[in-house]
Amino acid sequence: MPMRTMLICNRGEIAVRLVRACRDLGVRSVVAHSAADRDGLAVQLADDAVCIGPAPADRSYRNVSSILYAAARVGADAVHPGYGFLAEDPRFVSACEEVGLAFVGPPASVVAGMGDKIAARAAMREAGVPTLPGTDGPVGSLAEASAAAEAIGYPVIVKAAAGGGGRGIAVAMDGSELAAAVADASGSARSLFGDDRVYLERYVVGGRHVEVQVLADAHGTVVHLGERDCSVQRRRQKLVEESPSTALDDATRQRLLDAAVRGCERIGYRSAGTLEFIVDRAGSPYFLEMNTRLQVEHPVSELRSGVDIVTAMIAIADGDALPAELAGVAMRGHAIEVRLNAEDPARQWAPSAGRISRLRLPAGPGVRVDTHLVDGAMVPPFYDSLLAKIIVHAPDRPSALRVLRRALGEVECHGITTNLDFHLALLETPEFVAGTHQLDIADSVADRLTPAATAG
Amino acid sequence: MPMRTMLICNRGEIAVRLVRACRDLGVRSVVAHSAADRDGLAVQLADDAVCIGPAPADRSYRNVSSILYAAARVGADAVHPGYGFLAEDPRFVSACEEVGLAFVGPPASVVAGMGDKIAARAAMREAGVPTLPGTDGPVGSLAEASAAAEAIGYPVIVKAAAGGGGRGIAVAMDGSELAAAVADASGSARSLFGDDRVYLERYVVGGRHVEVQVLADAHGTVVHLGERDCSVQRRRQKLVEESPSTALDDATRQRLLDAAVRGCERIGYRSAGTLEFIVDRAGSPYFLEMNTRLQVEHPVSELRSGVDIVTAMIAIADGDALPAELAGVAMRGHAIEVRLNAEDPARQWAPSAGRISRLRLPAGPGVRVDTHLVDGAMVPPFYDSLLAKIIVHAPDRPSALRVLRRALGEVECHGITTNLDFHLALLETPEFVAGTHQLDIADSVADRLTPAATAG
Repeated sequence: MPMRTMLICNRGEIAVRLVRACRDLGVRSVVAHSAADRDGLAVQLADDAVCIGPAPADRSYRNVSSILYAAARVGADAVHPGYGFLAEDPRFVSACEEVGLAFVGPPASVVAGMGDKIAARAAMREAGVPTLPGTDGPVGSLAEASAAAEAIGYPVIVKAAAGGGGRGIAVAMDGSELAAAVADASGSARSLFGDDRVYLERYVVGGRHVEVQVLADAHGTVVHLGERDCSVQRRRQKLVEESPSTALDDATRQRLLDAAVRGCERIGYRSAGTLEFIVDRAGSPYFLEMNTRLQVEHPVSELRSGVDIVTAMIAIADGDALPAELAGVAMRGHAIEVRLNAEDPARQWAPSAGRISRLRLPAGPGVRVDTHLVDGAMVPPFYDSLLAKIIVHAPDRPSALRVLRRALGEVECHGITTNLDFHLALLETPEFVAGTHQLDIADSVADRLTPAATAG
Repeated sequence: MPMRTMLICNRGEIAVRLVRACRDLGVRSVVAHSAADRDGLAVQLADDAVCIGPAPADRSYRNVSSILYAAARVGADAVHPGYGFLAEDPRFVSACEEVGLAFVGPPASVVAGMGDKIAARAAMREAGVPTLPGTDGPVGSLAEASAAAEAIGYPVIVKAAAGGGGRGIAVAMDGSELAAAVADASGSARSLFGDDRVYLERYVVGGRHVEVQVLADAHGTVVHLGERDCSVQRRRQKLVEESPSTALDDATRQRLLDAAVRGCERIGYRSAGTLEFIVDRAGSPYFLEMNTRLQVEHPVSELRSGVDIVTAMIAIADGDALPAELAGVAMRGHAIEVRLNAEDPARQWAPSAGRISRLRLPAGPGVRVDTHLVDGAMVPPFYDSLLAKIIVHAPDRPSALRVLRRALGEVECHGITTNLDFHLALLETPEFVAGTHQLDIADSVADRLTPAATAG
């Protein structure tokens, strides 16, 4: 029976994105929102809305029972988690499965399997996906870690098995730093995830972050929609994403894309997903982890491929087979996304909140804006700092950079501090313009900025 | 020497579009505006602005000497006319050529040649482009007209040689109506254009309007960017445009596209241009006229082809050759544009003016909006009624119609009357959904609408 009512368990720009996808598919959308988000654009555009609790996420967007209760009350037969919050929580996926709600994402077993970073690494290695030298399982003692690190070669990175997204990790540049790194990573793993298992991998200094977007249906078909380069990061959070990557030659790119498809086939993946890789200075990619959900930066791949990833993942959750023409769909041109965040890059990326007093967002040829912002909107202090995604598409990278400069030049956003100046400065930075930047570029650009005097 | 400063001699959404194209090319933009448009978005976004006179177009946007004076004052080396106003006035093109200003469009001789609809028809026929049965030249007397009409077969349409765009025409369904039709057409031709020459063509009842977008450089290369179907018209003004056309089979489409390129090669065309055709109920296309300028609906072709038509025409005016990959560029998916106009379809399309009191325009995946509107903007009574172009792009026509419904559903525009309800009703009209509509569809949809109670 086709899906009729979707509960959207998220907020901000992605809730708006999900409402639009439901509208395109003729699926009734109900936004499950916190009390702080009751006046948001997603609530305005949706067919219906239901409050699931007060602002702190643990009492609303992360509150499984409140969400399931709301789903029953509004007659939802499907749930889309967006990204963040419960999107990769296997207990939430299981809870949906148990009550017969279609979870728009992979099965709970796959979410759990890829959530265990040691198991994910092993599964991908078995599928022939390149991984970094590292331990096959968790390290049981400092002696074991030390022996492993010597075998791998320093520097090494200690990672939480239950981690991901740059949380629960520590780097040891040499043997003298190993004990502290293990203690640091396992301690934060215990407090963040209640699971102190850690493993070791060779640490790549600098390098590039490249990821592959995949779509897989319930009938065994897996396709990729090209790669994205996300090497402009602050504190391991992406700020700019683009496709294609300037870090790969064509042969390496093709091997990477093929490996990603093979890995997904191996684990029985279903839905949209992303395999993240680090590319070292020699241009070789190594698997880092898989995100079993929609990514913030999915529009980059939508613009290049012409495929709507969100409607595709909803159709997949409804049992549809991927259209045959998706295998080998032509990628067109170059796409770049920048995240306009409420934060001050010159003050250690300190977040900002407040009321938007004047807003002008870019539009026109080659520009897409995904946002929940409207003039006069309140940006609450409770959530992540993403205000708007500005995504451009042009025939090649130089043209895309020009369109991006034009689009950012049209932005006016007063009342809060944003990272707009960071992006404008990045676009004048020679390494970024040349496409030769490494993962440290964001901090070096931010260091040159002057702190915002006041919110304004 | 590359172009440095562009004078933009237009207003509204197209002035904004031209400013953006200049920004993308690194060309300084100066908007030549009337006093009524001094606070508009184009002026805000441009590098500079210059007032060329009071609101009535004859005293500003159609005032050649005021525009040339402004061009000299701001140091412009190029002029973009947009559409309407002076865009197809060979005297303006000649005046630009005489003072050494690069006119972004074809040479004056070509503008004049295609402006004479009898000469244009003859030139295209010689190039093997299909034309309707009709007279080879102007008809000198009623007796001559009558003999020609008998030879052509009724109904016939009497057209002003100096006309175009649906002005200076009259239909005779049979011999009894011919004298009045000739008098009517030649009378309005004299008052509109100061040239009472008229010619006869067979009149196609119903039918479809299909046009071909071309780009031609100064080095003899001509390419097409596919066709557009513009059969939803009120009073011969387009309301909706889409590509591909549902009125053509693949073989006819290819013949049409090839004929358009051949015609442009024959006349030595340069710049962006559009050949307009009528497609009769048998599916056969016949040349009507050529527009030697940018069209309102150019974004439809931009979305399908991935080519920026405005930056291309500026580059052509600067002497650049078209990139080789443009010949045979792949068209992707289906694109539809709707014109959001300040008018009341239920009151004979009466125009509306006033201050926008609340505005929400659509955004997100598959949606592009080209507009000069901002919240609180004044819509003056002096100009055409176009408020915004909402253009959607999706893999196929059914998906594009769904995205269009979603986009129109997000529109809020208060303070003036718009044709939004017309578009929403059109999207529920079976012939339009099936793609079998004819040129009379707009009036039949409008007849079913209730007049807006008040501007609101």
